[in-house]
Amino acid sequence: MESSAFLTLSYLPSVHPSKHRNRVYPFMPCKHRSSKSSRIHCQKMYVPGFGEASPEAKAAKNLHNFFTYVAVRIVTAQLESYNTEAYEELMEFLDRHSLNDGDKFCASLMRESSRHKTLAMRILEVRSAYCKNDFEWDNLKRLAVKMVDESNTRLMRDYVSETSSVEKEK
Amino acid sequence: MESSAFLTLSYLPSVHPSKHRNRVYPFMPCKHRSSKSSRIHCQKMYVPGFGEASPEAKAAKNLHNFFTYVAVRIVTAQLESYNTEAYEELMEFLDRHSLNDGDKFCASLMRESSRHKTLAMRILEVRSAYCKNDFEWDNLKRLAVKMVDESNTRLMRDYVSETSSVEKEK
Repeated sequence: MESSAFLTLSYLPSVHPSKHRNRVYPFMPCKHRSSKSSRIHCQKMYVPGFGEASPEAKAAKNLHNFFTYVAVRIVTAQLESYNTEAYEELMEFLDRHSLNDGDKFCASLMRESSRHKTLAMRILEVRSAYCKNDFEWDNLKRLAVKMVDESNTRLMRDYVSETSSVEKEK
Repeated sequence: MESSAFLTLSYLPSVHPSKHRNRVYPFMPCKHRSSKSSRIHCQKMYVPGFGEASPEAKAAKNLHNFFTYVAVRIVTAQLESYNTEAYEELMEFLDRHSLNDGDKFCASLMRESSRHKTLAMRILEVRSAYCKNDFEWDNLKRLAVKMVDESNTRLMRDYVSETSSVEKEK
């Protein structure tokens, strides 16, 4: 495996709008996934470019790969202490296969050998348990909201302090 | 901007454990971020390799960049219909700057010109509003859990049907 795992979001379409899209709805009341009745009351910003999917679905797909990554880390840490042979096999497999696409990784691992298949089954089990029981969803939201607030403040503060110091120098 | 936006998770450490780590805790009762009292009752799997941070913090960082990407899409769609000049300027800027690091993108946009600064301020505002009001956090969890279940089932079913057909051919 590469030393730094990264999850591609290449399934995201470009920011550039498609050429054939002539109409835009700057304040379209809702995303295209609500029922007719809820659309009437929905005051959400229109998010273009996700086609049939939603931003939530794209983010979930990304998290899905992240959970596989976390599951692999959990399983390798477990194996390291009490099954060195399986640990070495998994690490060797990780050297040869990317974890960017979690499902593809698991599918390949299953087909490597019967021993690797057992490891793959365990990774599937762990990612399911981790996602359902261990991952702190409330904490994720709290941290993301905090991050947006802090980043916005920092970006504006940095800009102001930078421009005011430039003006002082003049 | 590149035609396919991707968010790097390069801040994730490698799956390979650090050489100096001698002890592992396969079923360590908790992550290293809980208080002493809660650690006693916590039965979570040990997730190695996130250092002082948590998987939730890493996922939040990734979502943070995603929210910037969504905010840019929202703002460009809004501008396209009623402020063509600003739209063209933003698109031209997007061609030259990557959106992988949302904060870096906004910082650069702020410093491009006073008109770009106004656009940057709007993107900051939209990402904050989107993250707090529009993004459906419950839906994210539901979709991610569903995705894990469906992917696990599909991976196992594909493997079984593949191997059983091979055995039939024998």
